[in-house]
This record gives sequence, structure tokens and C-alpha cells, in this order.
Amino acid sequence: MATHKLLLLPGDGIGPEVMAEVQRLIDWLNAQGIAKFETEQGLVGGSAYDAHKVSISEGDMAKATAADAVVFGAVGGPKWDSVPYEVRPEAGLLRLRKDLGLFANLRPAVCYPALAEASSLKRDVVEGLDIMIVRELTGGVYFGEPKTITDLGNGQKRAVDTQVYDTYEIERIGRVAFDLARKRRNKVTSMEKRNVMKSGVLWNEVMTQVHAREYKDVTLEHQLADSGGMNLVKAPKQFDVIVTDNLFGDMLSDIAAMLTGSLGMLPSASLGEVDSKTKKRRSLFEPVHGSAPDIAGRGLANPIAMISSFGMALRYSFDMGELADKVDAAIAAVLASGLRTADIKSEGTTPASTSQMGEAILKEL
Amino acid sequence: MATHKLLLLPGDGIGPEVMAEVQRLIDWLNAQGIAKFETEQGLVGGSAYDAHKVSISEGDMAKATAADAVVFGAVGGPKWDSVPYEVRPEAGLLRLRKDLGLFANLRPAVCYPALAEASSLKRDVVEGLDIMIVRELTGGVYFGEPKTITDLGNGQKRAVDTQVYDTYEIERIGRVAFDLARKRRNKVTSMEKRNVMKSGVLWNEVMTQVHAREYKDVTLEHQLADSGGMNLVKAPKQFDVIVTDNLFGDMLSDIAAMLTGSLGMLPSASLGEVDSKTKKRRSLFEPVHGSAPDIAGRGLANPIAMISSFGMALRYSFDMGELADKVDAAIAAVLASGLRTADIKSEGTTPASTSQMGEAILKEL
Ligand SMILES: CC(C)[C@H](C(=O)O)[C@@H](O)C(=O)O
Ligand SMILES: CC(C)[C@H](C(=O)O)[C@@H](O)C(=O)O
Repeated sequence: MATHKLLLLPGDGIGPEVMAEVQRLIDWLNAQGIAKFETEQGLVGGSAYDAHKVSISEGDMAKATAADAVVFGAVGGPKWDSVPYEVRPEAGLLRLRKDLGLFANLRPAVCYPALAEASSLKRDVVEGLDIMIVRELTGGVYFGEPKTITDLGNGQKRAVDTQVYDTYEIERIGRVAFDLARKRRNKVTSMEKRNVMKSGVLWNEVMTQVHAREYKDVTLEHQLADSGGMNLVKAPKQFDVIVTDNLFGDMLSDIAAMLTGSLGMLPSASLGEVDSKTKKRRSLFEPVHGSAPDIAGRGLANPIAMISSFGMALRYSFDMGELADKVDAAIAAVLASGLRTADIKSEGTTPASTSQMGEAILKEL
Repeated sequence: MATHKLLLLPGDGIGPEVMAEVQRLIDWLNAQGIAKFETEQGLVGGSAYDAHKVSISEGDMAKATAADAVVFGAVGGPKWDSVPYEVRPEAGLLRLRKDLGLFANLRPAVCYPALAEASSLKRDVVEGLDIMIVRELTGGVYFGEPKTITDLGNGQKRAVDTQVYDTYEIERIGRVAFDLARKRRNKVTSMEKRNVMKSGVLWNEVMTQVHAREYKDVTLEHQLADSGGMNLVKAPKQFDVIVTDNLFGDMLSDIAAMLTGSLGMLPSASLGEVDSKTKKRRSLFEPVHGSAPDIAGRGLANPIAMISSFGMALRYSFDMGELADKVDAAIAAVLASGLRTADIKSEGTTPASTSQMGEAILKEL
């Protein structure tokens, strides 16, 4: 059995608590002989800053590069609100994405039937929802240069951020979206603001070309990002795969997540290009929710998004799709049994702490 | 009685139909001696392109500059999808905003009780909703340079857009938001992505300063634009005034509009700086909805957003707050009577065409 090397980066806030439940799952898989994972731990975000005055150390970056997959908790919190911009907690995550070349961020937004009531949207609007948002993750305004604040004198400053996209960046994220659509409901909706942004014009043009050249069997639709956002709120079930840039993807995937009523449930995968020699791709898996400093350390956090992110690692990095299906089924079964962490509780359900939820999922497995 | 000069720019799609209802209202106000409006008409968007191969002619720009207020319908449609970028329909609107210096875009998102059911959100989440989104409208990625597509050879192109904000631009939009909050529920939420964008860092810093210097009596809160978007979907009633940049404002105001379930109902005002001599400010009023080419010319369009935008003109440009209140009350009364255009129809209501709705509002007045 192949040994897989994982780097676990719990990060800040509730990160360590939810990561502990993944560690528990990994230990069990190893003990049962179902898989062979070697894990290392590292620091990222505020916890790395507290230890080394950086958002991630060179040592941990090296470990991330050497690992077969990175499992990431969450970063940030008010404690680090005034650290210098370059070493703010988020910088660690952004560096991991950029330096590992993780250009494709997959964010499924699935509405669990047992939780449809928790959504602020009407049940019939979201019940059965199953969208995949494919967000470009290493380009756009997140990384474009110049990115500066300049003192103009007279009490005036000028801030500049730059959105840059090259053809190849749009092509490769487009292919990820079309490939996923083929395994789903065969429809891709590309979102940009071509009526205002030149990057939107190019995005639209390249998506249209990739589609025409390589994916004629998939339906491609274009929506402006603002009306796309509206449609997401109005009638989300019209979508299958949505492909969009880094900043629109940030906004739209969070909104899609909120529709499901279960932010604490949603995983994400960030993937690099497939190496032509090793056939491997770098990858990082993280929950969509943040570090939730307000509830950290109290056993209140929902570990499902984190466990489900590890499930995506099994599927996308280790070709263990069946095991991933079992993890998903275990989560669904535990929810159906009525067990709930505080964020998803409702009348008639049984309250569970972070570790009780983790244990229950493991028992179900 | 002072004479007010209006430039009406109906634009494309349903623009002319809904503008006709404003014209009817203006004619009546003039005939009754309630006000004295002089109106001119101009072309913008696709209709300007069809006539003059531009998105707005120099002549109409001059009229817009000379007018006391511009009343704008909507622009765009598939017919003009492949006209050159520089003369696309939206360019006319963007030029009006920029050249008239209309930096402050006010977008109220109000949920009419009679229409709460039309929202995709649960009634208790949106009933009574009353948010004001204050969007910066002449800066950011909409207008920053460079804004280019460059051919890099080898089939590769590079698209660049630039987000630029200066201190004074953030200060003045901040003041608009704080002033509005004082007349409302005294709370401003500023949204940006300071964890990723330098413009977000400056935005946050300047808002905090303006607040500390001039508006300590107003509550100021900061949210990241992505989680702000989530909160808008989850629990929108937590907000009073939201202030944000041009692109985030585009996305967030559309989402807020959709929450209300009545996009066809929502007006907007775009305001310039107050001239220190004349005490006047340039202004443009437009519905939040677009040109809806699919239903254009069939009497299906809802004229309420357009009429209500004219109501904002009465309030913000002509100091006729009482008359504006009467227009709002007439709209509410007609809705309460059960009259509905197709976009907001539901069981047990009475269908109305565009002009029937316009007439009914006028009769109510
Ligand atoms: C933490 C932050 C830098 C990050 C982003 O903006 O990409 C987060 O919001 C996300 O969506 O993963
Ligand atoms: C038509 C378009 C240029 C415009 C914008 O992006 O500002 C519209 O979406 C709006 O919100 O007024």
C-alpha cells in the first residue's frame, strides 16, 4: 500500500479543533490498515506569526511542497488585526496557493436535505441544491502587480490593485470546469463583467474558444457576475458548474455557501496542474468557513466541513473515491440521526460538541 | 415657481416603455401646476449606437451637463453584443457617471410588505427590510488605468484592469454614507477586502478616520466584502447603510435588490458633489433593473422602479421631499390594492400592463 504524506496546517481560531477530528479519522484509517498516511504538522497564519513573526515559515513551506497534500484549517482573528500587512494571517494562505500553483479552487455548494430548513432561503428554492463553483485561485487582483499604497502628500494616499489574466490561465481553469461538468449535469456558467472589465472581455473570449475547440458536448452559458449573483439568490438550481475569477469566485462561492444554510458543512479543494511526469498534482484542502475566533476553543465548532475537505483529498489527490463516498455517507447518516453542532441545531435535534460529532462520524464509518 | 430642466434618456429594451410612465407623471405635475419641469430627450446605449455609432453623442452629453437632473432608463441587449468595446451600450452610462462626477450611488433595498412573498428568502428574513447601499461610482476598477488587452504572441493575450482609490474619493463617499445614516438608523457598515487588496486597506483606514473625526455619533462597523455578502443573504436586517466601492457595490447592491423579491421596484440615485457656489449637485436617476430585452415592447415591464427613481429626483435634486413621499405612498397604495405587473404577480392579484400600472399610480396621486 502506498504511503501518502500529508501536511496538516490547523492555523488559528477553530482550526486546531476541527483539524483534531481529521487527525482522529486519519489515525483510524491507518490503524485499520485502510490507508497509510504519514502526517506532519505546521504553523500558518496568526499562530505562525506568534511563533516566528511570519505568516508561514520557510520550513513549513518546504514541508508543504514535499507533501502529497496539504490539509488546512483556517486563519485570522482580531488578535492579529494590526500586524504588518505582509505578515497578516491571510498572507500565509495566499503564499501557499501561489507558490504551490493551486490555480483551481473547487467549492461544492450542496444543500443537505436534513438542513434545508437552516437556510434563510425558502426550502423549495434550495432543497436538493448541488452546485460546483470553480474559482481561479492564483491570478487576478489577488496577485497582480502593482499592488501599492503611495503617499501623495497633502494627506492624500493612493491605493492601487491590479487585475491581470493571461489566456493560458483562463484556458486551464476553463478545462477544469468543463471536465467537472462532464461528470455532473454537463453545464458550465462562466461569470465575469465584460461590460466593464477588459479581463472580463478576455475571460469571455477564451472560455468561448476552449468550449468550441474541446468541449462542444458541454453546455456553456455566460452571465455577468452581478446578475449571476442575483440569479444565485433567486433560482440557484439553474446552475451546475460556475467558473469565475479569483475575486468574483470569493464573493460568489461565499454566497452559494450561505444559500445551503450550512457554511460549517462545506469543503473545498485547491488543485495545481498535473505534472506530466509524475501524473501528480499539488493540492490543498480547506473548509469554506473561517477561523471563527468568537467560538474558538469551546468545543462548539462544526468539524464536518473539515472532515469533508479531507474527503475531497481522498477523492482528488489519492484516487480513493470509494472511501470518500463512505465518508460523505457517514456524514449524511450522522446528520439524519439528528446529531447537530450548535451552528446547525434546530428543534428536536441532539446537540453535539466538535469531538462528539467527529466521533459519531467515525463510528458510522 | 422655479423651472427644472430634465434630460430623459430612455435607452434600450424596456427603457422607453417605463420612461413613458415618468413622462406621463411629469406632464400631470406640470398641468396641475404642482411643479414646472422642462424635459428634453436624448439617446444612450444601443439606440445611440444605431443612430450615431456612439454610446452617447456629444450633443446629448452637453444636454446632460446643462440639465438639473438626468433621468435614465436602461441600456444594452444582445443586439449590440458584438459592437466595438469603446461604443458598447454600457459605455454611455459609464461616461455619464464619470463626466458628470456622479460619485455617490444610492441604492435603497426595501422589501414592500405586499411583495415579501415574492422573495426567494423566507418572509421573516426579509419582511420590513430597509437597507441603503451607498456605492462609490466614479472610481475603482471601473475607470482605473491601465485597462488593456495586449497581444503577447504565441496565441497568448494579457488583460489588465486597475483598481485605484485616492483618500479624497473614500472620504467623500464616506460622508455621504454617514450623513444618510444620521437620517436613518444611525449605523454604517463599510465593506472591502483589506485582507487581500491594498485599496481595501486604504478604504478601511480612511473610513475609520472620517468616522473618528466627524461622525462619532454614528456606529461604524467593518465587514469583509465576502462575509458581508454572506451576511446580506443570511440576516440582511442587521444592516442600515452599507458603504462600499464601485465593483463590490455593483455585486452587493444587486444581491440586496434580489432579497427584496422586487427588482422591478427598486430605484437608484447617482449624485455629484455640491457646488460651493450654486449649492446644486449634478444627478442621475435610474432603476436598478436592466433593459430586459426579452420582454421589451410588450407592455410587460414594471414601471415602478423608474417612477420611484423619479421620486428620488424630487427628493435629492429638487428638494420636494413631500411630493416624493406622496409618490412613494401612491406606489404602496396601488400595490396594496392588488395591482401587479407580470414580474410580481401572485395568486389573487390583478394583472396590469406597464401603462395600466403607471395610470393607476397617477390616479392614486
Ligand atoms: C482568507 C482570505 C484571504 C480568503 C480569500 O479571500 O480568498 C478567503 O476569503 C477564501 O475565500 O478562501
Ligand atoms: C450596466 C453596467 C455597466 C452597470 C454597472 O456595472 O455599474 C450596472 O450593472 C449597474 O449596476 O448599474
